[in-house]
Order: sequence, then C-alpha cells, then structure tokens
Amino acid sequence: MIIFSERINGMYRDVRKAINEKEKTVVQELVKEQVAGGADVLDINLGPTKGDPVENFVWLAQIVSEVTDRPISLDSAKPKLLADTVAKVREALPERTLVINSSTAAADSMEKLIPAAAENGASIIGLTMDQEGVPGNVEKRVECGATFLMMAMESGLAPEDVYIDPIILPVNVPNAEKQPWNVMEAMRQLSIVNDPPPHFIIGLSNVSQNCLMNHLINRTYLVMAIAAGLDAAIMDAADKDLVEAAVTAEILLAKHLYSHDYIKAWKMQKGI
Amino acid sequence: MIIFSERINGMYRDVRKAINEKEKTVVQELVKEQVAGGADVLDINLGPTKGDPVENFVWLAQIVSEVTDRPISLDSAKPKLLADTVAKVREALPERTLVINSSTAAADSMEKLIPAAAENGASIIGLTMDQEGVPGNVEKRVECGATFLMMAMESGLAPEDVYIDPIILPVNVPNAEKQPWNVMEAMRQLSIVNDPPPHFIIGLSNVSQNCLMNHLINRTYLVMAIAAGLDAAIMDAADKDLVEAAVTAEILLAKHLYSHDYIKAWKMQKGI
Repeated sequence: MIIFSERINGMYRDVRKAINEKEKTVVQELVKEQVAGGADVLDINLGPTKGDPVENFVWLAQIVSEVTDRPISLDSAKPKLLADTVAKVREALPERTLVINSSTAAADSMEKLIPAAAENGASIIGLTMDQEGVPGNVEKRVECGATFLMMAMESGLAPEDVYIDPIILPVNVPNAEKQPWNVMEAMRQLSIVNDPPPHFIIGLSNVSQNCLMNHLINRTYLVMAIAAGLDAAIMDAADKDLVEAAVTAEILLAKHLYSHDYIKAWKMQKGI
Repeated sequence: MIIFSERINGMYRDVRKAINEKEKTVVQELVKEQVAGGADVLDINLGPTKGDPVENFVWLAQIVSEVTDRPISLDSAKPKLLADTVAKVREALPERTLVINSSTAAADSMEKLIPAAAENGASIIGLTMDQEGVPGNVEKRVECGATFLMMAMESGLAPEDVYIDPIILPVNVPNAEKQPWNVMEAMRQLSIVNDPPPHFIIGLSNVSQNCLMNHLINRTYLVMAIAAGLDAAIMDAADKDLVEAAVTAEILLAKHLYSHDYIKAWKMQKGI
C-alpha cells in the first residue's frame, strides 16, 4: 500500500494560513505526523491560497523536503500550472521522486502533463475521465484508464510510473449509488487487461464527503477497494484506525507475511 | 446481511456450564444481547457438553425461542445427530424457521441432511468440502459448492434455502496465505454460475483464531468478503464495530439506501 498523505492541502485552514504567511513550522509538523503514521508520499495541494502558485508549490515542496526524503506529489486540477510546477520543483529538488497529480484522459490535459512527467522523471496520476466529466458507468472509466495508460507508455513511462485514479464520488450523491462498486469493477478490469498493471489510487476522503460517519466509511471503502486491486490512496495517514485497516487488508490478501503483531512488523519495516 | 449469532456455543465456558446445568437465564441474556446487536438467526452449538445431545439441542432451542422469534440454526459437524436433532426440534417448535448447519458436499453427509432439510422445512448450510477435507484451491471449492447446490435443488429446496459456506481458515495457518482470497473468489464464481445465487456464509471468527488482533481481522475480512458476495456470517453480533462495518459495507455496495445516520436507520428497520 502506497499511502499518499492528503493533509498538506490548502483546503485545510491551518495549511492555508501557513502557505499564505510562509510559516513553515506548521506544515513541517504535519509532515512529520503523516510520515510517522505511515505516509509514503506527501501530496501537496495549495487550495485557495494567495500569491504565485508555482512559487507557492516550490516553497511547499522545499519545506516538506527539509523534514522527509519521501516522494512529493504535486496536486492541482490545472494542467498548465502543474506542468510549470513540476519543472520548477525538479530544478529546486533534482533528486526527489515526484508525482504529478493529476491529468485527465482528455487530450489537452494528457498532451501537457504526460510529457512533463517523462521529461522531469516524475510519475503521474491519470483520472479516468475526459472533457465530458466523471463517467457514470464502468465501461467509460476503463476506456479512459486504458487510453491514459497507452499514451503514457508511448511517451516512455513504465506501468509502475502510472497511477490510474478511477475517481470515487461521495456515497451520499443521489442517483450515484453504484459508483463505489463501479470504481472497484473498473480497477478489476484494468488490472486484467494490463500486464504488468499500473498502480491504482483514489482520493479516499471523497467517498465520505459531508457524511456523518466519515472515518468509518473511509476505512470500510478502503478495505474493499484494496481487495479489488487498489494499491495506493490519498488519505489521512494520521488516522490510525484507517492505516491499521489497510495493513490488515493487505495481510488477508497475502501481500505481507502474517506475524502475530503484524502492525508492529509493518511499522518496523517502514522505519516508523 | 443475515447475521447468525455465534455466541450460543458450548465452546464458550459460560454457555457450556449453562447447558450442563440447564440454567437458562445465562443463555437467554446472551440471546437478548445478540438480538439487540443485530442477530437475525441464533446459531446454537453444544460444544463439549454432557448428556444426550439431541435433548440438549431441543432444550437449547426451546429456551432460545422463549426470548426471540428469530430463526434458529442447529450447528454440529455430526450428520446423523443433526438429522435427528432437526426432526425433534421441528416437533418441539413447529412454526420456527430452522437452519441446518452444516452438511459437507460428501455423499453420506448430503444424503442424510438435504432430505432432513426438505422434510422439516429447514434451510441448510453446505460446506465446500468433501471427504478429502478443505480444498486448498478455488476450483475444488466451486465444484463442491455446485454439487451441493445441485443436490439441494433436486431435493426440492430453493436457492434461498441454501447457504454455501466456502470455509475460511485462520490467516495465521502456514502455507495457506491464499485461502482468504480463494474463499472470495469461490463466492464470485459460484454467484456467476447460479441465477438466482444461493446465500453465502462464513464462520467469520475462524479467520482470526488465536490471532492477536482478532476483532480488527474479523471486521476487515468481513468487509472484503461482503464486497465479494457474502450475504451472511456466523459472528458476534455484540461486536458493535463489526456490525457497523458490515452495515457500512452494504451501504457502499448500494444494498441499503444511504441516509445521514444510516446505522440508526438500519437499527430502526430491524426493530432493535
């Protein structure tokens, strides 16, 4: 399980304030907490912050990198900003493993971001949607995922550099009851047709947005998605119950060797 | 989700003592607790108790039926005892819904128990194993399940009267790492080939037998098994976290309508 920390995001008031005031301690404490909880990758997202976004991204990536050597994921819905950002962050941090989060499967998005990933030695997350929005069915998700993967391979990326995100919607969206199942089915189908398969990732908290029992919904969906092939998630690594559910799911799927205190063994292996 | 309570079992010391001393209050309090937690069916198992087993079963079924009108599942690994028991319990409780737990797919077991189910208007659980023991692979599980289902249909049982149990083994058994996955895959395959499918059930606690984090393992496996088609489990209905995980899994699979406090809605619907 590759845990992308969701916490360094300007949508959170404390992070937004820290970015706006260039107050690095708040962010660095959060990074330490996320890494201690099991984060493998630090996803950074500016949210609605002030100032030049590329400069903000570079600042954020640099202060994150002062306290951890883990990979950094650059998170924005704006393709041009993301392409510019990855080039600048690469300059500032030549050795750091980077992930571009994310491109859609629409041509204009892929044309900007897949080359940016290839040129800057970054991995990339591809959403299974195009200019028409999030698909309501499995078939279109699979089609978008396959298109994205093919374009990435043609640009010289390897399957392990690609994360397909089948886009989980909130469980409380009316008339979208089948979406959680569709996301799992799309992963199963995309795993079968691609050998080796890409990574599969979701923005987990989205499934429980504005839900009363959000932590319970998150960890329940994470477990079933892992059984369907998910091997990465953008999530709160400081949610101990959530992380333990993920590790237990992987134990049950024989992705780790069972030992009596397997949570402890998992932590030792990660050095946390 | 059809929750079979696992708690009225002579393997538990308090229940064993109660059966041996015919002390009904202990058992009845447990039954009330299990029903309050969400149990739909009361599974009763004598364990290593003294006295005549058929008489003990009848006594246990009667005292359970004094405090709940929910179905009773008669649980033993001995086919002849189980066949005799279901006839006697049927005499004592003519109106009660009964389940026979369980027959294997071995001929001598099916020949005794499937007719006993048909004659006494009982449902029946069929284990996906035969005289050769628990299969190490998916194929043999599917073969045993299909055989059992075919025999049950030929004897006049309907698919909804049949529970297929693909037999979950403890996750800590050496060299059996793939078993939890195999159980899920067997359910998926048996669902596809049978329309309408039978019920699928497991003895959940078996997955975490002698494990340090047994509650966590139970609820994690339950969630992934529900996503693979499981719709019944023999489990501890008093384990609140476990029951909530099951309800949440079914919400995510659109088996219940989402509402903001869906746990409360589920309880109201069950009258608990």
